[in-house]
Amino acid sequence: MTQQKVVTFGEVIMRLSPPGFDKMKQSRSMEFFFGGTEMNVAGSLAQFGLQVQHVSNVSNDFVGDAAISCMQGYGIDVTHINKVNHPLGLYFMEAGSGLRASQITYNRLHGSFANISPDLVDWEKVLDGCSLLHWTGISPAISEGAYQTLKQGLTLALKKGITITADPAYRSNLWQYGRSGHEVLAELIGLSTVFIGGVNEVNEILGTAFTHDKDGFITAAKRLQETYPAIIKVYDKVRTGLSATHQKIFAQSWTENTYSKTEEIEITQVVDRIGTGDAYAAGLIYGLISGMNDPEAIAFANAACALKHTIAGDVNLATVQEIAEVANGNHSGRLKR
Amino acid sequence: MTQQKVVTFGEVIMRLSPPGFDKMKQSRSMEFFFGGTEMNVAGSLAQFGLQVQHVSNVSNDFVGDAAISCMQGYGIDVTHINKVNHPLGLYFMEAGSGLRASQITYNRLHGSFANISPDLVDWEKVLDGCSLLHWTGISPAISEGAYQTLKQGLTLALKKGITITADPAYRSNLWQYGRSGHEVLAELIGLSTVFIGGVNEVNEILGTAFTHDKDGFITAAKRLQETYPAIIKVYDKVRTGLSATHQKIFAQSWTENTYSKTEEIEITQVVDRIGTGDAYAAGLIYGLISGMNDPEAIAFANAACALKHTIAGDVNLATVQEIAEVANGNHSGRLKR
Amino acid sequence: MTQQKVVTFGEVIMRLSPPGFDKMKQSRSMEFFFGGTEMNVAGSLAQFGLQVQHVSNVSNDFVGDAAISCMQGYGIDVTHINKVNHPLGLYFMEAGSGLRASQITYNRLHGSFANISPDLVDWEKVLDGCSLLHWTGISPAISEGAYQTLKQGLTLALKKGITITADPAYRSNLWQYGRSGHEVLAELIGLSTVFIGGVNEVNEILGTAFTHDKDGFITAAKRLQETYPAIIKVYDKVRTGLSATHQKIFAQSWTENTYSKTEEIEITQVVDRIGTGDAYAAGLIYGLISGMNDPEAIAFANAACALKHTIAGDVNLATVQEIAEVANGNHSGRLKR
Amino acid sequence: MTQQKVVTFGEVIMRLSPPGFDKMKQSRSMEFFFGGTEMNVAGSLAQFGLQVQHVSNVSNDFVGDAAISCMQGYGIDVTHINKVNHPLGLYFMEAGSGLRASQITYNRLHGSFANISPDLVDWEKVLDGCSLLHWTGISPAISEGAYQTLKQGLTLALKKGITITADPAYRSNLWQYGRSGHEVLAELIGLSTVFIGGVNEVNEILGTAFTHDKDGFITAAKRLQETYPAIIKVYDKVRTGLSATHQKIFAQSWTENTYSKTEEIEITQVVDRIGTGDAYAAGLIYGLISGMNDPEAIAFANAACALKHTIAGDVNLATVQEIAEVANGNHSGRLKR
Amino acid sequence: MTQQKVVTFGEVIMRLSPPGFDKMKQSRSMEFFFGGTEMNVAGSLAQFGLQVQHVSNVSNDFVGDAAISCMQGYGIDVTHINKVNHPLGLYFMEAGSGLRASQITYNRLHGSFANISPDLVDWEKVLDGCSLLHWTGISPAISEGAYQTLKQGLTLALKKGITITADPAYRSNLWQYGRSGHEVLAELIGLSTVFIGGVNEVNEILGTAFTHDKDGFITAAKRLQETYPAIIKVYDKVRTGLSATHQKIFAQSWTENTYSKTEEIEITQVVDRIGTGDAYAAGLIYGLISGMNDPEAIAFANAACALKHTIAGDVNLATVQEIAEVANGNHSGRLKR
Amino acid sequence: MTQQKVVTFGEVIMRLSPPGFDKMKQSRSMEFFFGGTEMNVAGSLAQFGLQVQHVSNVSNDFVGDAAISCMQGYGIDVTHINKVNHPLGLYFMEAGSGLRASQITYNRLHGSFANISPDLVDWEKVLDGCSLLHWTGISPAISEGAYQTLKQGLTLALKKGITITADPAYRSNLWQYGRSGHEVLAELIGLSTVFIGGVNEVNEILGTAFTHDKDGFITAAKRLQETYPAIIKVYDKVRTGLSATHQKIFAQSWTENTYSKTEEIEITQVVDRIGTGDAYAAGLIYGLISGMNDPEAIAFANAACALKHTIAGDVNLATVQEIAEVANGNHSGRLKR
Repeated sequence: MTQQKVVTFGEVIMRLSPPGFDKMKQSRSMEFFFGGTEMNVAGSLAQFGLQVQHVSNVSNDFVGDAAISCMQGYGIDVTHINKVNHPLGLYFMEAGSGLRASQITYNRLHGSFANISPDLVDWEKVLDGCSLLHWTGISPAISEGAYQTLKQGLTLALKKGITITADPAYRSNLWQYGRSGHEVLAELIGLSTVFIGGVNEVNEILGTAFTHDKDGFITAAKRLQETYPAIIKVYDKVRTGLSATHQKIFAQSWTENTYSKTEEIEITQVVDRIGTGDAYAAGLIYGLISGMNDPEAIAFANAACALKHTIAGDVNLATVQEIAEVANGNHSGRLKR
Repeated sequence: MTQQKVVTFGEVIMRLSPPGFDKMKQSRSMEFFFGGTEMNVAGSLAQFGLQVQHVSNVSNDFVGDAAISCMQGYGIDVTHINKVNHPLGLYFMEAGSGLRASQITYNRLHGSFANISPDLVDWEKVLDGCSLLHWTGISPAISEGAYQTLKQGLTLALKKGITITADPAYRSNLWQYGRSGHEVLAELIGLSTVFIGGVNEVNEILGTAFTHDKDGFITAAKRLQETYPAIIKVYDKVRTGLSATHQKIFAQSWTENTYSKTEEIEITQVVDRIGTGDAYAAGLIYGLISGMNDPEAIAFANAACALKHTIAGDVNLATVQEIAEVANGNHSGRLKR
Repeated sequence: MTQQKVVTFGEVIMRLSPPGFDKMKQSRSMEFFFGGTEMNVAGSLAQFGLQVQHVSNVSNDFVGDAAISCMQGYGIDVTHINKVNHPLGLYFMEAGSGLRASQITYNRLHGSFANISPDLVDWEKVLDGCSLLHWTGISPAISEGAYQTLKQGLTLALKKGITITADPAYRSNLWQYGRSGHEVLAELIGLSTVFIGGVNEVNEILGTAFTHDKDGFITAAKRLQETYPAIIKVYDKVRTGLSATHQKIFAQSWTENTYSKTEEIEITQVVDRIGTGDAYAAGLIYGLISGMNDPEAIAFANAACALKHTIAGDVNLATVQEIAEVANGNHSGRLKR
Repeated sequence: MTQQKVVTFGEVIMRLSPPGFDKMKQSRSMEFFFGGTEMNVAGSLAQFGLQVQHVSNVSNDFVGDAAISCMQGYGIDVTHINKVNHPLGLYFMEAGSGLRASQITYNRLHGSFANISPDLVDWEKVLDGCSLLHWTGISPAISEGAYQTLKQGLTLALKKGITITADPAYRSNLWQYGRSGHEVLAELIGLSTVFIGGVNEVNEILGTAFTHDKDGFITAAKRLQETYPAIIKVYDKVRTGLSATHQKIFAQSWTENTYSKTEEIEITQVVDRIGTGDAYAAGLIYGLISGMNDPEAIAFANAACALKHTIAGDVNLATVQEIAEVANGNHSGRLKR
Repeated sequence: MTQQKVVTFGEVIMRLSPPGFDKMKQSRSMEFFFGGTEMNVAGSLAQFGLQVQHVSNVSNDFVGDAAISCMQGYGIDVTHINKVNHPLGLYFMEAGSGLRASQITYNRLHGSFANISPDLVDWEKVLDGCSLLHWTGISPAISEGAYQTLKQGLTLALKKGITITADPAYRSNLWQYGRSGHEVLAELIGLSTVFIGGVNEVNEILGTAFTHDKDGFITAAKRLQETYPAIIKVYDKVRTGLSATHQKIFAQSWTENTYSKTEEIEITQVVDRIGTGDAYAAGLIYGLISGMNDPEAIAFANAACALKHTIAGDVNLATVQEIAEVANGNHSGRLKR
Repeated sequence: MTQQKVVTFGEVIMRLSPPGFDKMKQSRSMEFFFGGTEMNVAGSLAQFGLQVQHVSNVSNDFVGDAAISCMQGYGIDVTHINKVNHPLGLYFMEAGSGLRASQITYNRLHGSFANISPDLVDWEKVLDGCSLLHWTGISPAISEGAYQTLKQGLTLALKKGITITADPAYRSNLWQYGRSGHEVLAELIGLSTVFIGGVNEVNEILGTAFTHDKDGFITAAKRLQETYPAIIKVYDKVRTGLSATHQKIFAQSWTENTYSKTEEIEITQVVDRIGTGDAYAAGLIYGLISGMNDPEAIAFANAACALKHTIAGDVNLATVQEIAEVANGNHSGRLKR
């Protein structure tokens, strides 16, 4: 029996950053990476050896070619990437350090992915042989076309009994095309089976005010499941940001009426803060697919998230073995020969 | 009496290129420059010691800040640069070499400058104390707002008796906002006094088919002056591209019923091909302002253009002295201690 | 009907070079590329859109992982790449310029590929759905295992009626494992159907002394076909090296008793000399597969070879369209917007 | 009413450093920055939007041109920068890390600024429209000419009622041209109105031995004001250096018979230690000019100093908004999209 | 009387690492260094001003030339470096950060040093004028030839009464050529006079199970001296690795029946972890040669080790003065002008 | 019998250049090299395997340490390098290309070497075992101390019968310390035995006006020998600079009443123009020492000079073998594996 694939849907976006902690006004060059929250998940899953397909648009030029080559290099299946005559979305980042915050400015709202539409994605074909579909709240926030395309995919996937992992990621400064973010996210979560989020996200979507402690999380998770009966599992990650380069994270879950929680991991010299949430999601999906139980899965996901902080770029390049070691409590970083 | 200023109007655009002759798909970093055809002219004129003001929009973020800092660094007056909530236009370039062509792809049509409009530019204030206004055909090709803003400036400048240098630069793949490039350029050239272009440009605008020799150039120039009586001088630059890194250029003019022509200069190892036409325009404007006669002015402009091929970035950083030496026939490149 | 794949067999080797024209003793960093003469052909064919599979060994460490990721990035199918506990082969290159020759030193004879053996390659599976198999004389020169593995593949391919392109590339300083290069090459060319080589190669293998003019080439090709009846086509490329950075090339062929020859192309500023012969082979294979006639195919191959001189790294990244333009005589390198 | 300008006077010096934590003997390249203690203050004030003019000499060559362009890029008015036929002063720095100290070696004593003299500065013109003049003890330590030029400026400024901020910065290994540093600083502080310094500086200048606690600071400040009645305010910054890359700072003041003190800020991963005192001075000057009360002003200055530790180069590029956030207690460095 | 030289024997190996914390699969360039555990000791001793000669093989190509030039640049005498027709050994390292471990993969077992043999080293000549010979357990682990060559040297040195410092460095994944690491190390330690190692090393070699506290160390040292009477001193360094970039170290010794111990030094931002043990050994050897008593010598050695963590590359570039300051308790890293 | 050493005397100077063809005002980093006209000769001779000692001052700081390490890396004996408390001399260079000239600006007149004096050099010791002493006209142009020190050395060397090669290199913009360059050079050439220069140099020193053809050269050489009877050989190199990156060179000599001349070599893509004359001098000295006849020696010197144009930095890194190939007419730059 052949392995079933994971499908991700979302923007492929280019990150451009001056070297080190430089500001653009003192630089002459920038490093660039291709990423995007869902593509990051795809990239990490491919590093784990899973078969994963990303569905998106890229620009019909050498920038889009480079994006495709990058995805191929990660081992992502690019069969369902369209090339369209709109520039690839991008963002600039100035990396902060310590008490100086990193800053990001976007150029994405008229880009390749913003111009996706249901006719560009053959969901029947895409979901053939698919066991899990992953989406985040960034995609439907970009454009009406992205929203419609995603909704179509979720509807079909739910009908096919495919596991659907939803990472709502409500950002109020997106959602400029006319729809209400809260309404759209509520609708799409209703079409999903696994919720990757916590008290903040539930409060945002349901308009509730649950507290940020264990009880608040459990109550929020229960309320979410009552509201959206398709949701059978809730996985959360709690971050304490001490500075731009010093973070603490732990993970918790509410599944089958059981609460689980990991140790907290401290990261003292952050190499790259971007994509750490996506690394968590990918770790979790790997846990789900490879049959870990929930405490194991969130420990793996939390360790994946922690390791991503030490890796440059948007995609977690850590291997299953490296993550498993950290998940098992080895944080010594001892040289391996 | 204080020196009078030169004003330029046009997009400030960022160039992003992989190092050397790399293609994006094999790179992880890009060099960047701020330029734009009219800003390049401003930058070169500022190197010559002229007072020059650029009128444009930039993005209201750290990218726009970097663009402003870059212009200030060249010595350009940025008083009339607006900061707007649209991303700065940009383009990617893969530099070719020899028989491999350089390639450019743009992301500008929804950018900062495309969102300029007449209410954002106080032309009375801008043109106060201005002796020369420079524009190119790129600006009105970007958006209706850019076209209307420019037209308003030209109309006022012409009324004030300001010298207006027009560099039509017809590119058919721009002009996507609804107007005909030929009609718009024809209208705006009618509001100008100096034409920087040759047989190709005249044929393009008037729909004529003059030949590319000396007689064709003279006849074209005459026809242009008959059509647009405000045009009193026509300056041209003729390029022979032997390869991406091997070029020949000479300049010619038709002014006061007299034809002038420079020697042809050969450039065998092009460092940067971008902005060479703008370097020519800046050289010419310097010649006009500093009181050179026409053969001197086109020799200076041609030498400025040639030297720009040896300088990285969009803006010609050559000094008046360096250019004068080349204009006087010294091409030996001998080390100066 | 699905497209049939091309298969290539050979070492994946890492190139390490100090930047620019530096010598190692004055450097602190090196650029690296993954290549290898047959992998280069695979990479170029993948850029052309063909389905291509490379068969090789890489090291079972993060260096091997990087090599695999690089191949995937080119679009090469890596299903039949083995990971073995021997370091990846590599070479150092100091790039020359003008009259200074580039220098290469190898570390490959105990590497991953040298440790390949027939039991590591399932040729039945590899050749399933394959229309063309490409090999060069470098592979059997590395080790007995490489020789035996290749011979097994060629024997099966010939039996299956697959087109077999042979690029003998006799290098006397390889062949250190005990066999005679001349004998092995003669044996393996006897198992091939297309010969990519000219007078030098024929003289080397047959011990003849044909002259280096047109007549010499035709006579050599005829003699080759008489000796190895399976060879039905002979394609050659003739290079004149004026300096490390100034080259001339043309191509010629002897097929179906007809001689064809291309124009000579001059390359004046070589960016990267490595892999130009492989670019030629890939161009030729594309011509064969896409149904070009012989003059078209060698013009395409010659243009591909010429363009490779302008591209850094071992693999030709030029597209079919770029090559076709050069093949059609456009060498102007004019900027494409 | 137009805004009044700030004037700074002092050396423009180039910093040259190997990348990262490299030592020169293992490097082939160096990064460079233009700075100088007073120019750093000017640069930071220009980032805050103030009109600021720097008075100095630079070399009459392309190095001096680059220095001028750099200052223009920061938005500093360079009208009163002279170009002289002496090389620009410079220093080399090897950056330390942790318990390894950074090391600096200078080449400045025969440079452009050392050759300044009163006839090169038209102080009447410079101080026209000036509300605040800033100087440090580095300038009069360089040469007799620098001392005389500064004294002339201070004398005139004091007469005009301009606020004069004095940052004595006694370094015993400067002062090689014959005068006593203690005497000169005492004389020039007598011509100033705001003292930026603490117990160390007072003890150094007055030959006292006040203790390094709050009482010592207050007593020292009082004694200073008794000695130099023109001094109406004393602002101090106290640094605890735990390692080259780990620092703590707080600020305190004695103004109008009142003691104020800020929270201590901890910086755990110093990006660049140079210019942090200048960032403090600039923050303080901004506070004074923008009408903050003293606790606000020292909190802003302390936050500016802290943020400078995260920014490469000599000049603080932090904005008023970024600094205000830190001054208000937000040290989380949370990503801003 | 002329100063007597120190001799070191061991592999010269090249390290190749992607920049910063990058993984090879996301890089295009690598930094390289020449080192090797014994050569690192030689390099550090040469920085201290000692006369030091390294005995080894390098490759007979431009890589070997670069290695020789590098050693000369450190001030190492290369008279007894042979050039042989085998590639220089090398390793790749991906640097970890925080909880991510650094990873190393080797290519050395068929390299230049592996091909050393007794006939290539004239030990009589090498040891003429030599006061101290240093070796580590890496060398005899590489090949039979390396083992035999070293044994010959040690035997002669012991006979001549030369001090012999032994740093057993047992790595189980070396020792692939057929001999037992434990037996060989036991034999060679029997030919040495100073043991640089602690409980781990003694347990490894003697098959004992001493505990890792002070008593364990003393008992182990005593047992070692009983077993190998030539060993008169035992020096140890104890490392606590909190993460890849956060370490603690202290040193202890058992000499003349006396235990000594240093303060523990904490290193919070490791720049380079490689060669820190070699820096310790070099510091110790310097202490022995320059006549320090044991507490001084281990304090100097421990400080040398600590400082090496802040220096890129394999060799400690810290000076005697820098180390002495740290050894004296100054860890503030305060800027030195 | 041991090989006798070559001694060179002159400034060790640091070159700082922005990357590629950048101007400083558009750069943030610079590459640096240590060189100096006589040190360049020493470095090249050391590459050839000769024993060579350089006599000079460097700064007593980490810059001077780096300079010493660099010389050691070339294999130069640094026994007679003094460390003094004056900064190392340096120069900045912006590299030109094609018709744009390179530009250099110096900071050397108060540097380490300018502060050399006869008491710092023990010429008896330096010249012990020396067979050839090389000097150029740059050294006595720097300071009175440099002049006196050199004169002392030449006087002793001449007395000892050592070959003295003189490369007058009259630069009018040096010689600022009070002496006449013409007089000093005349005096010092009178103390030399081999003259490396041609018509320009003779005309400059003797105030003659010989023509630049063969006859002019011969007549000039004769006149020189009449004027300075110690001069027994005259070697010249004639350069035609077509552009900054395109040069032609040939060499000629007048020795023992015989004229010799080499072929002219064309260099079309200059990598680095600095130190090419020094490469010529080193080639010539090697020829003299190794017993070549004059046509061989100037062919070797001319080839050395040509190859230096392809090598970055001040010192020629070409080997004897590489040079011999070019001297023998092989300019093809064919890849060496």
